[in-house]
Amino acid sequence: MPDKINEIIEELALANRILAHEGVLDAFGHVSVRHPADPSRYLLSRSRSPLLIEPDDILEYTLDSEPVQPPKAHLYAERVIHGCIYQARHDVIAVCHHHAPAVMPFAIAGKPIVPVFHLGAAMGEDAPFWDQHDEFGDTNLLVVKQEEGHSLARALGRHSAVMMNRHGATVVGGSLKELVSRSIFMCQNAEYQLRALALGAPQPLYRGEVRLAGALSLMSNVVTRTWEYWSMRLEAAGAMPPRRSSAKAARRPVPKPSRVTPRERRKGRRR
Amino acid sequence: MPDKINEIIEELALANRILAHEGVLDAFGHVSVRHPADPSRYLLSRSRSPLLIEPDDILEYTLDSEPVQPPKAHLYAERVIHGCIYQARHDVIAVCHHHAPAVMPFAIAGKPIVPVFHLGAAMGEDAPFWDQHDEFGDTNLLVVKQEEGHSLARALGRHSAVMMNRHGATVVGGSLKELVSRSIFMCQNAEYQLRALALGAPQPLYRGEVRLAGALSLMSNVVTRTWEYWSMRLEAAGAMPPRRSSAKAARRPVPKPSRVTPRERRKGRRR
Amino acid sequence: MPDKINEIIEELALANRILAHEGVLDAFGHVSVRHPADPSRYLLSRSRSPLLIEPDDILEYTLDSEPVQPPKAHLYAERVIHGCIYQARHDVIAVCHHHAPAVMPFAIAGKPIVPVFHLGAAMGEDAPFWDQHDEFGDTNLLVVKQEEGHSLARALGRHSAVMMNRHGATVVGGSLKELVSRSIFMCQNAEYQLRALALGAPQPLYRGEVRLAGALSLMSNVVTRTWEYWSMRLEAAGAMPPRRSSAKAARRPVPKPSRVTPRERRKGRRR
Amino acid sequence: MPDKINEIIEELALANRILAHEGVLDAFGHVSVRHPADPSRYLLSRSRSPLLIEPDDILEYTLDSEPVQPPKAHLYAERVIHGCIYQARHDVIAVCHHHAPAVMPFAIAGKPIVPVFHLGAAMGEDAPFWDQHDEFGDTNLLVVKQEEGHSLARALGRHSAVMMNRHGATVVGGSLKELVSRSIFMCQNAEYQLRALALGAPQPLYRGEVRLAGALSLMSNVVTRTWEYWSMRLEAAGAMPPRRSSAKAARRPVPKPSRVTPRERRKGRRR
Repeated sequence: MPDKINEIIEELALANRILAHEGVLDAFGHVSVRHPADPSRYLLSRSRSPLLIEPDDILEYTLDSEPVQPPKAHLYAERVIHGCIYQARHDVIAVCHHHAPAVMPFAIAGKPIVPVFHLGAAMGEDAPFWDQHDEFGDTNLLVVKQEEGHSLARALGRHSAVMMNRHGATVVGGSLKELVSRSIFMCQNAEYQLRALALGAPQPLYRGEVRLAGALSLMSNVVTRTWEYWSMRLEAAGAMPPRRSSAKAARRPVPKPSRVTPRERRKGRRR
Repeated sequence: MPDKINEIIEELALANRILAHEGVLDAFGHVSVRHPADPSRYLLSRSRSPLLIEPDDILEYTLDSEPVQPPKAHLYAERVIHGCIYQARHDVIAVCHHHAPAVMPFAIAGKPIVPVFHLGAAMGEDAPFWDQHDEFGDTNLLVVKQEEGHSLARALGRHSAVMMNRHGATVVGGSLKELVSRSIFMCQNAEYQLRALALGAPQPLYRGEVRLAGALSLMSNVVTRTWEYWSMRLEAAGAMPPRRSSAKAARRPVPKPSRVTPRERRKGRRR
Repeated sequence: MPDKINEIIEELALANRILAHEGVLDAFGHVSVRHPADPSRYLLSRSRSPLLIEPDDILEYTLDSEPVQPPKAHLYAERVIHGCIYQARHDVIAVCHHHAPAVMPFAIAGKPIVPVFHLGAAMGEDAPFWDQHDEFGDTNLLVVKQEEGHSLARALGRHSAVMMNRHGATVVGGSLKELVSRSIFMCQNAEYQLRALALGAPQPLYRGEVRLAGALSLMSNVVTRTWEYWSMRLEAAGAMPPRRSSAKAARRPVPKPSRVTPRERRKGRRR
Repeated sequence: MPDKINEIIEELALANRILAHEGVLDAFGHVSVRHPADPSRYLLSRSRSPLLIEPDDILEYTLDSEPVQPPKAHLYAERVIHGCIYQARHDVIAVCHHHAPAVMPFAIAGKPIVPVFHLGAAMGEDAPFWDQHDEFGDTNLLVVKQEEGHSLARALGRHSAVMMNRHGATVVGGSLKELVSRSIFMCQNAEYQLRALALGAPQPLYRGEVRLAGALSLMSNVVTRTWEYWSMRLEAAGAMPPRRSSAKAARRPVPKPSRVTPRERRKGRRR
C-alpha cells in the first residue's frame, strides 16, 4: 500500500500542475483525491498555488477537513468544499475547485454552461448554480464553514459540476484522471459556447448525444492520449513536479505509449 | 522508393506537429497522407496527440481503414474519415480532421465560414455542413463506422473542407503542404470573420477573387516561405520530430532558402 | 535602515517585473513606493520599461517629483502622478499607473469597472473616471504638470483606483504587495466583466460582499500564495531582477513557504 | 558610408523581427527602408518570413522595384507597394505592409480604425480605405502590378496608413523606428477599439489630442524605452538576428540606456 499511496500522491501533484498549465487553475484553486486505502480521508496540498505543488506538500485530512497531522504550514481556507462533497457523494474520488477564466463569464452572468461539442459532454447535461448569498447573506464568498460546504454539496447533488455565482466552479470525478479531463473539457466547452454566441444561439448536443459522448473521456484510448499530451506539455515547460522525498521505490506516473493488451486484440477493437 | 517513403513519413510527422503548434490540432485531431506508391493505401499515426507524433508512429492502412500490419498500439477511433474520403476523392492526397478553437463557434452555431481575406480563399467558396444526427441519430459524435465515414465523404463532395456540427471540421488537400496551408489559413479566416462580426456584417471576397486567391497558397513563393516559418517556429519550441529509426539515408524535409532555378530566371519572374 | 532600503528597492524592481509579466504593464506604465524612512520621498525607476527594471535603476524623488540626485538618465514624464497622490493620501504607500489591455476598453468607452468576482473586490466598490480634457483641454494626454497630477489625485479621492479616459488607470495600495494584487485582480475583473457582457448584464457583488471580500488579498494566506506564484512564473521566464549592486548584505525578497507561527497555531486557525 | 549602410541593414532585419515578435507580421508581411545614401533606392529582404530575416537577406531595389543585382532567390511578389510609395512620398523613409490579426476585422468589415488612446494617435486622425476591386476587378488581391502600387499610393495620400479591404494594411514612417512604433501602436489601438465596442460606441480622441499625442512616439524618452523593450523581448525569445556577414566593423544597433545629454540637462528637462 505505501507504493500505492506514493503513486497517488505523485499523481495528485501532477494533476494540480496539469490543470494549472492548461489554464483551469491559476494562483488559486485546488484539487484533492480520496485516500486510496481509507475512504474517510482525503489528500490535498497545503496552501500553495497549484503549478508549484510538490508531493511533499500533500497532506491527509479527515472528511471534516481537519488535518490528520498538526499542520506546519498554511492550509487552504476552502478545504471544506472537498470534505463536504466526499461526505455526500461516495462515488466521488476527486474534486477540483477553480476560477478558470473560461467559466467566469458564466459564473458572473448566472447563465448556464451547456455541452456544445462532443468532449464538452464530459460535464453532463447541465451544471446547477449555487449562490452563497441566498443562504448565508454577505460573506467574502469563500466557502470556509462546514454549513457552507454542506450547502454547496447539496446544490451539486448528483451532477458532475456546480457553478458558484460571482466566484467560480467545483467539479468532481470518479477518478483523478476523469476529473482532470472533465475540468479541461468543460472549460473548452464554455469558451466555445461563449464565442459561438456572436453567431447566434448555439445549438447544444441532443440529450442522447450527451449521454453517449459523456463517456468519451473515459475511453482508454482517450485517457492515454490526453494524459501523455498534457504531461509532455508540462514537461516542455520545465514544470514537472519532483519525486516524493520519502518515495524511493514509488513509480512516477509517467505516461507510456499505450499498447494493445492481448484481451483487447482478441476483442477485435475497431477504435 | 524506400527513400521516398521515408521522406513522406517524416514529412507527415512534421505536418502533424506544425498543425498542432499553429493551433489547429490539440490533444485530438489527426492528419493522413495517401501512400506515394500505392493509392489504395494511406499513412496515419497510431493513436497519439499530433504534437508528439514520431515517424515510427506512422502506420499503413487500406482504404477500409484496416491496418496492414497487426496493430501493436491503440489506433485512432475515427480513421474511417480518412479511408472513406480517399475512396471517394481520387484527387485527394492528404486529409486533416480537427476541432480547432477557431472553427468551433461555427461548428456549434451551424453558421458558414466564408473567405473574408485573400489567404482564406484557400478553403474555396464555402464548406458544407454535415450533421451526424440527421442520418445516424444519437451517437457519441465520433465518426467510427464505415457508413458514417461514407456519409461524411458524400457531404464533403467536391469541396475542400466539410464542417461537422457540434464536433469540428475535416479538410482535404492535393498535397500534404497544401493541406497544412489550407487548414491554417481557414482557421485564421474563421477567427477574423468572427471578430469582424462585432463591426457589422463582414464582406466576403468576390467570387472571382476566391477563385484567383485560392491558388495563392500553392505558389512556390508562398509554400517555401510558410513551410520555413512554421518549421522554424516548431524548432524554436524544441518540438521537431526525431528521424525515422529505420531511415539512415532518408533526407529530413528541412526547409532550405528557395533559390531561383535557371528556368525561373529565364521566365523573368516578377513575383 | 540601509538593509531595509535595499530590501524595498529590490522588492520594487520585482514588483515592476511581476506586473509586466502578468500583463498589467508593457513597454509603458510605472510603479513607485513611498520611502520607508522618509514619507516625504518616494522611490521610482528612471524611464525604462518595467520588465527590465533593476534595483540600480531606482531613484529617490521629493513629493514634488524632483529627483533628489541630479539625474543621469531620462526620467518618466508622468512621475507627478506619483508625487501628487503621495501628497494627497497619507495612507498610500505604493502607486501604479498603467494601460493594461484589460482596462483599456473601459477607459475608452467611459464605462465603469465593477467588482464581479470575489478577488475583484480588491478594487473597492467602484473606480471614478478622470477626463484630462475636462479641465485642461487638448493635451497629449500625458499627466506631466503638477496641476494635472493634483487634479488626478482629487478625482482619485478616497478610492483605490481611478480610470483615465482614453489613457489608462492609476491604482494605489497600503503596501507594495497590496498594490500588486489589487492591480492584477482588477485587470482580471475587467476581463471577466467584459466577456460576461456577451451573456447579458453581469451581476456585480453585493455591497457587503465587496466590503468583506475586499480584504481577501490582504490575508497572509493569500499574499504568500500569490507572491510565490507570480515570482516563480517570472523566474521560469528567466526574468528575475538582479541584486542591487551596492547591496551585499541585503536579503533578496525571495518568497518562502509560509510556516504557521506559534501565535497563529494557538489561535487555532481554520483558514 | 559602408558603416552606415551596414547599420541600417542590421536595423532593418531587427525591425522585421520585432514586428513579427510583437504580432504585427506573421508568415507574411514585409518592411523596407529607403536607402540612406541614395533616395532612389530602397532596401527590402528577399521573400522570407519576417521573423527569420537576416541582414544577408536584404537586397537593394530601384523605385521601380527592380532588384539592383540579379536575384539569386525568390523576391516578394508585392514589392511594388514599397517602390510606388517611395516614389509618391519623399518624406517617407520606411514602409510596412501587414495582415495583423488586430487590423483584419476592420479590413474585412470596411469600418475605420480611429485613435482611441494616446499612443494610438501615432496613426493620425484616420486611415483611408483602398479596395483593389474598385479599380482592378477580380484579382488574387496581391498588389503586384505597378498600376496597382500607384493606385494604393494615391489612396494613402498624405496619411500615415492605408487600410486594404479583405487584405490588410500598409503603414509608413519618417524613420524606421517611427514606423515600428506606429505599426505596433495602431494594432493595439485596433484591438482596444474592437473590444470597447462591447461596452458601447467608443469615444475617439479629440482632434487636438490626436495632433499632440501623435508626436508621443517620436519623443526620445519613448523611442529609447520601446526599442529597448521590444529588443529585449526578442532576445529573450532567442530570436535576435545574426550580424551581417560582410560587416566586421559595423556596430549592431543594440539599445543602450539613454543618458541625458549636456544639452538636455541645460534645457532643464521635466519629462
